[in-house]
Amino acid sequence: MNLTLLTDLYQLTMAYGYWKTGNYNQRAVFHLYFRKSPFGSHFAIAAGLQQAVEYLENLHFETEEIQYLASLRGADKRPLFDESFLNKLQRFKFDCDVWAMPEGTVVFPNEPMMRIEGPLWQAQLVETALLNILNFQTLIATKAARVVAAAKGDSVIEFGLRRAQGTDGALTASRAAYIGGCIGTSNVLAGYKFGIPIRGTHAHAWVMSFDDEQASFEAYAAAMPNNCIFLVDTYNTIEGIKKAIAVGQNLRENGHKLLGLRLDSGDLCALSIAARKLLDDANMHDTNIVASNDLDEYEITRLKEAGAKINIWGVGTKLVTSYDQPALGGVYKLAALQDKNGHWQYKVKRSEDLVKTSLPGIQQVVRFFEKTNTAFPSSDLIINTPIDEHFQTNVLDNTPHELLLQAIFKKGKRVYDIPTIAEIRTKTSKNHAIFSPLPHYKVEIDPVLTELRQKLLLC
Amino acid sequence: MNLTLLTDLYQLTMAYGYWKTGNYNQRAVFHLYFRKSPFGSHFAIAAGLQQAVEYLENLHFETEEIQYLASLRGADKRPLFDESFLNKLQRFKFDCDVWAMPEGTVVFPNEPMMRIEGPLWQAQLVETALLNILNFQTLIATKAARVVAAAKGDSVIEFGLRRAQGTDGALTASRAAYIGGCIGTSNVLAGYKFGIPIRGTHAHAWVMSFDDEQASFEAYAAAMPNNCIFLVDTYNTIEGIKKAIAVGQNLRENGHKLLGLRLDSGDLCALSIAARKLLDDANMHDTNIVASNDLDEYEITRLKEAGAKINIWGVGTKLVTSYDQPALGGVYKLAALQDKNGHWQYKVKRSEDLVKTSLPGIQQVVRFFEKTNTAFPSSDLIINTPIDEHFQTNVLDNTPHELLLQAIFKKGKRVYDIPTIAEIRTKTSKNHAIFSPLPHYKVEIDPVLTELRQKLLLC
Repeated sequence: MNLTLLTDLYQLTMAYGYWKTGNYNQRAVFHLYFRKSPFGSHFAIAAGLQQAVEYLENLHFETEEIQYLASLRGADKRPLFDESFLNKLQRFKFDCDVWAMPEGTVVFPNEPMMRIEGPLWQAQLVETALLNILNFQTLIATKAARVVAAAKGDSVIEFGLRRAQGTDGALTASRAAYIGGCIGTSNVLAGYKFGIPIRGTHAHAWVMSFDDEQASFEAYAAAMPNNCIFLVDTYNTIEGIKKAIAVGQNLRENGHKLLGLRLDSGDLCALSIAARKLLDDANMHDTNIVASNDLDEYEITRLKEAGAKINIWGVGTKLVTSYDQPALGGVYKLAALQDKNGHWQYKVKRSEDLVKTSLPGIQQVVRFFEKTNTAFPSSDLIINTPIDEHFQTNVLDNTPHELLLQAIFKKGKRVYDIPTIAEIRTKTSKNHAIFSPLPHYKVEIDPVLTELRQKLLLC
Repeated sequence: MNLTLLTDLYQLTMAYGYWKTGNYNQRAVFHLYFRKSPFGSHFAIAAGLQQAVEYLENLHFETEEIQYLASLRGADKRPLFDESFLNKLQRFKFDCDVWAMPEGTVVFPNEPMMRIEGPLWQAQLVETALLNILNFQTLIATKAARVVAAAKGDSVIEFGLRRAQGTDGALTASRAAYIGGCIGTSNVLAGYKFGIPIRGTHAHAWVMSFDDEQASFEAYAAAMPNNCIFLVDTYNTIEGIKKAIAVGQNLRENGHKLLGLRLDSGDLCALSIAARKLLDDANMHDTNIVASNDLDEYEITRLKEAGAKINIWGVGTKLVTSYDQPALGGVYKLAALQDKNGHWQYKVKRSEDLVKTSLPGIQQVVRFFEKTNTAFPSSDLIINTPIDEHFQTNVLDNTPHELLLQAIFKKGKRVYDIPTIAEIRTKTSKNHAIFSPLPHYKVEIDPVLTELRQKLLLC
């Protein structure tokens, strides 16, 4: 699907205004960032760049879309847009420079996750879709990393398709959940499109479609002896566990094994302890106990502290909708504009609330590492420009560091190879392990930048 | 996009099990319903049927998708599915009967919004996508109807694209929000695809791209004199209002008018009162005051009670993500299965929690109306079967009523004409006005059905 129209109308009316005013090609710099980490975390996990790149690479207006725009009317029933502008849109090719943090990067509030530099009207046009894509996947990857951390080494599978917010709300949530550390998803389309491992066995309806619960397990084992995780709570859970174990014994005699039992209701802690005992008594020590039912990081922590013998966690609704905070408040702010003489004019969005006052400049984020242990980050610094040579010579060259914003597009051409999803997932897991024990990690703003903001606010 | 794989893997492994067991064509009946209305409402507004119909009409497996399924492996590294089953999938054509409540219908907990009857494996396969589509749009249409009711006749515009959950989470939220009573959306793609009115003027970046706020309004007015709603809070709001009014006077002198002012931060109540006074003093009585900034039904009610002079409400994040309850817990339960002799065997899903115990039977919902005022609903009744002639003769024929589940597909062929979105929106608005003053509306279950459940639970 062409997503070029996935934008707020005001991006197009502003583009038209810039066109009429003659400053549509004025070079502008925007940053995309959030002001507050979700869930009371100290940071978020950047995600969604691949879909953002695909969106930008495919930007163009189809003839039919132009006709739709031509049909729009203002208050006086006359067309909103004139023909010369619509012709301009039809010929449009995206030619901005884009810098972004690779997926799986740990990102802190106010750090730009993305920087767009290019013709004012183009950089403006892409605001809404970029926010939509990056806000949501960053939110879910962060949530997933929290859930996975709560599982302390147990596997977490994402199960949320049926309650997700729309088809793409499900698909990209499955992707971001995998990036965040889930081992797979129930969502077959996500498996097909993104190469995520998929998991699933049977539902209550399978058991109910037979006259007898044990007969249903036997029939399933006969059909798929290599994929047996039985859902044991359709009738009486303890009886269900015993029947599953009986069928597991048959499986074992035929060279297969009972991979797991799944609990989906009731007291998951008590039932899992009972299930573990019955399994161990049957010498099925490596049969897993899978649990699901409204789980999230808090409930997993509670169950583990209570001694639950669950070792695979199926997490659905609360993960894919990010139930306790269903939106990340990422914003996209103008920070610099080139004047006729080619000089950058820096811009701030004022607000009575200082937290909401934007940072001006052309920003980059430097992550410093300890000199003695270059794998260990020590602080972040938001600097005014990545190409300030003075700064680089004096500070950067003397300290191990990484520039977090990487070049993604140059003049509209992609210059960045998208890593595989497995690479992104590994990076996330490594980063999460490093940063989560650091609640007081220092993120500073280059004094040059703070001064610049101060000066602009006094104007 | 082909959404056939938008399903949980267990639907396919169960289908495979039914295939191996030989009962894949056994006729089954499933119902889709929710157990609890969202937001403490007494009911929800059914929405999403159009997308559900499009999904069902397009169901088929592409060769590449079959190849993907062929690549899946079990615990022993052998294929999950055998070739005969994959051939079966490749030839598959959906041939179920589907009954559903038209979009815009007021639906109460436990009432089936949809009933699927057909070959067990097919009716099972479609569970997840149908839940995904209907859960989300029903949730958002219901939320929107609440927000619109809180606005008491003022216009509500949906602005949520940038914070929505994925591209489709945004698109279908725009659709459902319009059905629920919003007058339009900022989302251009939703306007293009669904024919929803779109609205938008300019952002803070427009103002910031000029050296002077008033110059920015003048430039906008010069470009689009027929679409002037000025965002006045980029710097000082009261000053912004005055500058907008000055430009509005020019507009008026040139035969246009200032359509509105938009407030996006600060004390919306006090600012709107000040804005109204300044506008009235300038004889701009019909210039609208638009407000946005984290609005929902509660905040709109609070602002109206405090005397705010806002008459157009821009509602974003909290509407499109349904922030205070981001998922509807719709379920899909097996209720009947035909045996070899063609007799229906009724099924219940037991639960320790009686609320979670499903209703058996082949259900229909009858909505009765008052005899003296046939436009006024008096109660709903969930009955065992729509074709029970005894019941129809004795009860239905004597009382004005409507059968809420309508035939949508017969043997896989669509037999239902999808209404226009405008028709759905009108129906919603009419229904919402009738039902919202009725907090104690009676929804009963046919005693035949309750008895049937009792009998099955005792087995």
